[in-house]
Amino acid sequence: MSGATVVAAYGGRAVEYAAALGTMASVHPSDRELVIGWARALTGRVLDVGCGPGHWTAHLAATGADVEGIDPTPAFVDHARRAHPGVAFRVADAEHLEVPRGSLGGVLAWYSLIHHHPDDIDGALASLADATAPGGGLLVGFFGGDAVGSAEPFDHAVVTAYRWPASALAARIAAAGYEVLETHTRTSRDDRPHAAILARRT
Amino acid sequence: MSGATVVAAYGGRAVEYAAALGTMASVHPSDRELVIGWARALTGRVLDVGCGPGHWTAHLAATGADVEGIDPTPAFVDHARRAHPGVAFRVADAEHLEVPRGSLGGVLAWYSLIHHHPDDIDGALASLADATAPGGGLLVGFFGGDAVGSAEPFDHAVVTAYRWPASALAARIAAAGYEVLETHTRTSRDDRPHAAILARRT
Repeated sequence: MSGATVVAAYGGRAVEYAAALGTMASVHPSDRELVIGWARALTGRVLDVGCGPGHWTAHLAATGADVEGIDPTPAFVDHARRAHPGVAFRVADAEHLEVPRGSLGGVLAWYSLIHHHPDDIDGALASLADATAPGGGLLVGFFGGDAVGSAEPFDHAVVTAYRWPASALAARIAAAGYEVLETHTRTSRDDRPHAAILARRT
Repeated sequence: MSGATVVAAYGGRAVEYAAALGTMASVHPSDRELVIGWARALTGRVLDVGCGPGHWTAHLAATGADVEGIDPTPAFVDHARRAHPGVAFRVADAEHLEVPRGSLGGVLAWYSLIHHHPDDIDGALASLADATAPGGGLLVGFFGGDAVGSAEPFDHAVVTAYRWPASALAARIAAAGYEVLETHTRTSRDDRPHAAILARRT
């Protein structure tokens, strides 16, 4: 997937997507606890990378975080600004964060790296690491894959996405300059496996 | 492991165990959210089976649950009663709950089935199912094993325990008369994999 393809695919369905998944009501309670607990322990600015409709950015702001949401899809940023006035949003992507090096206390990448081809994930992670202060946090949410092997594509509702074995993505994150702290996975009968990795910038 | 062996092993170390693991401060935030959120959605009495020092029982009671803690180790029940006056505790084990059939709204078995030999787990689960009303809940916490295969023993600090591949324990729970709703796993560098299964009595 090129970034342009992803932006075009989401741009055409931003309203539909925001209605279905753009509020905290659609978030699993375990994820809410995980993200908010993670953010609470950070110092400094948090960047919500690939913020989509902006509900996580707004929720983090409401819980006291110094947070900004970025997304490469202008229709999402428009929606986020309207839905959450007073919260900072701008158009940018994971490879071009446009923040000073080492300036961030943490990066949330919540199901926003799922469209990166496995060949492109290292560049995105390097960009996040470059912008993050030593000791800063990274929390990545994604669809889990099999216990062994590499990422595999699947037919996501909007545009092709990749699910990752947690251990494989954890290895990529570690190679980008992070210490992996925890991996969480959750399965249910009706849904794809969900996973999250918490890491700390070395 | 016979039940008597487990009781004897814990009985000799109940004070030490309670000091190290007997408060909510030792609980991972994700587990706290998981257990409390699960209990909040139940109707009826909750039995905390294998309650140990009683901190989960007391926490559930404080959040409004109608809850009773049982443990086969008398030293734990003594400790729990002293530490949490006003909360109900008694000596009983998973195979002999001593409650009416179908009377429970939910059973919490938080790291308390880990000492059951794989040959004995079905009997314990059947006992929990028998005591639970249709639609009632079950939440089992345990140490996770490999992605495939069966339970394997490991050297637990107190007495031999078994770690289960989540899918293998989920199959046992389903066979006992439950619908498995969700499986959660969590790994970290310093610790064994942790897992939890949420199920509903059919």
